[in-house]
Amino acid sequence: MSFSHRRRIHFADTDAAGVVFFARYLAICHEAYEEALRAEGIDLNRFFGEEGIIIPIASARCDYLRPLHCGDEVEVRLSPTRSAPAEFTLDHEMVSLSNAGKTVARARTTHVCIDSATRRRKPLPEKFAAWTGEVVVAGTETGPQT
Amino acid sequence: MSFSHRRRIHFADTDAAGVVFFARYLAICHEAYEEALRAEGIDLNRFFGEEGIIIPIASARCDYLRPLHCGDEVEVRLSPTRSAPAEFTLDHEMVSLSNAGKTVARARTTHVCIDSATRRRKPLPEKFAAWTGEVVVAGTETGPQT
Amino acid sequence: MSFSHRRRIHFADTDAAGVVFFARYLAICHEAYEEALRAEGIDLNRFFGEEGIIIPIASARCDYLRPLHCGDEVEVRLSPTRSAPAEFTLDHEMVSLSNAGKTVARARTTHVCIDSATRRRKPLPEKFAAWTGEVVVAGTETGPQT
Amino acid sequence: MSFSHRRRIHFADTDAAGVVFFARYLAICHEAYEEALRAEGIDLNRFFGEEGIIIPIASARCDYLRPLHCGDEVEVRLSPTRSAPAEFTLDHEMVSLSNAGKTVARARTTHVCIDSATRRRKPLPEKFAAWTGEVVVAGTETGPQT
Repeated sequence: MSFSHRRRIHFADTDAAGVVFFARYLAICHEAYEEALRAEGIDLNRFFGEEGIIIPIASARCDYLRPLHCGDEVEVRLSPTRSAPAEFTLDHEMVSLSNAGKTVARARTTHVCIDSATRRRKPLPEKFAAWTGEVVVAGTETGPQT
Repeated sequence: MSFSHRRRIHFADTDAAGVVFFARYLAICHEAYEEALRAEGIDLNRFFGEEGIIIPIASARCDYLRPLHCGDEVEVRLSPTRSAPAEFTLDHEMVSLSNAGKTVARARTTHVCIDSATRRRKPLPEKFAAWTGEVVVAGTETGPQT
Repeated sequence: MSFSHRRRIHFADTDAAGVVFFARYLAICHEAYEEALRAEGIDLNRFFGEEGIIIPIASARCDYLRPLHCGDEVEVRLSPTRSAPAEFTLDHEMVSLSNAGKTVARARTTHVCIDSATRRRKPLPEKFAAWTGEVVVAGTETGPQT
Repeated sequence: MSFSHRRRIHFADTDAAGVVFFARYLAICHEAYEEALRAEGIDLNRFFGEEGIIIPIASARCDYLRPLHCGDEVEVRLSPTRSAPAEFTLDHEMVSLSNAGKTVARARTTHVCIDSATRRRKPLPEKFAAWTGEVVVAGTETGPQT
C-alpha cells in the first residue's frame, strides 16, 4: 500500500535561511498524497461533487531532521493506515536522494471523511477504504477529533 | 480612486537569495487589490455567485527595481483605470517604508470581466465601473486580449 | 508573555477547496512568531550573523478545527514555553474574528538553538531566554529531539 | 537552445477560484529555468559565491490565455535570447498536456547580470553566454533597465 513520489526542490520552496521553509514540507507531502490518489484511480475533484463528501485534514505533524536545499531531490514514502471507519492517517518519510538517502523529515496527517452538507463523519468511500485497508486501532496515539 | 495597502514582508515571502521571490511581488499586489475591493464594499465571492460573472487576470507585468528583505514594510499604491467596457488595469507602485520610501517595483495587471457560462466579455458590473471610472483608451499600450 | 497577531486571509492563502490550504496555517503562525520577536526587539537576521547560532524548527503540529475563507480576519495568540536550556515551544491558538472568535486551529512548534558551525545544541541567547522564561519540563509530552 | 519542463499542477498551486493562482504561473516558469540551468551544468548556488555575481530578474510579464486546474499536466517550453552583454530574456510558452496541448500562458522574464558588490552590470559568465547565444537587439521591445 506504500507509495513513493520524487520531487526536485525549487527556489520557490526555500526561504532566506537558504533552506526549505518548514511549512513547505507539508505541501510537498500533500503532493505525494495527490499522486498516490492518482495512482489509485481516485479523482478527488469528481469524487466530492458526486458523492457529497469531503475529506479534510484534521491534523498534521512534522518532525524535521535535516535541512533541504534548492536543487535537492527528495523522495516522499507514503503509507496509509485506516484509523477509524471515517478516518485514515498518512505517514510520510521524506528522504534526500541528494544526501545519501538520509531521512530529512517524518510527517503524519490525519484525514476525516465528512458529509459536505451535515459536516458529520461518514464512512470512507470504497476506493479510499480499499487503499487504506482494515481499521487499525492505534494504542496511545488516538489522533485528533473533528 | 487610488488606494494604499501596507504589509510587512515575512519569512515565507523570501527565497534562498535572501530577498522576496519575484513572483511573490504579484501576490502582494493582489492583496492590495483585495483590500481595495473591500474598501469599495465589493465582495468578490458573493458577486460571482449571484451575477454569473468572473473577472480573471488577463496579463500581469512587473518591473523590479530594488530587493525586499524579511521584516521590510512595503506599501502598495494602487490606481485603477478602465481600459474597455469589460476591462480594467491596475497600476501598482510598491515602495519600501524601510528604505526611505523608495520604489521597489512597479506592476500592472489587466482584468477582464467575462460571463462565467459563455466565457464571453461582459461589461463590468456597476460597482466595478464606479471604482474604475470612465473608459480611457491607452495610446501605445493596448494591453493583452483574451 | 503571550502575544497576538491579526491577519486578513488573502486569495493566495486559499486552495481549490475554497478554504485556506492546511500548510498555510503554519506559515501564518510563523508570521505571528516573527511579529512577536519584533515586539521583543529581536532581529533574527542580525542575530544569526553575529552570534553564530541558528534556531531551526524541530517539529510542528497543527490541529484543524474549522475552515478559514478568503477575507476572514484571523488572530493568532502565541504563548512561548522554554522546554530546555536550548529549546522552546510556541503554542498558537488561531481564532477567527469573522466567525464569532471561534478557535479554528491550534498549532505547536518546537524550536532548538544550535551552533551554526558545529550543529550542536547551545543555550538560548539572553533575549530569547527572557522571552521564553524559566525551563518548564513537560510531563507526558517531551517533544521531538533533533 | 530551447528546453522543455513538465510539471503536474498540485493543490497548493490553486486558489479558491478553483484554478492556478496567477502569480504561480511565474513560479512554475522559474522551475523550468532552474531545470534548464541544471541541464546546462550551471549551478546557480556555487556560481554566485565563486564569481561574485548575481543575476536577478529585472522584469516579468505573463499573458494568461486559459485556466489550469489541479491535476493538469503542464509543459513549459523555454527559449533564451541574449538581449545585451549583461542581459538575457527567457520566453516561456506554457501548454496544457491535459487540454490538447493548448497554450495556457506566455511569459517573458528579463535577467540582468550584476556584480554583487558594486551592483553594476557585468557581462554574463561564459556558460550563460553560451546558453543564451549572440546578442540580439530587439526592435521595439527594449526591455526594462535596472
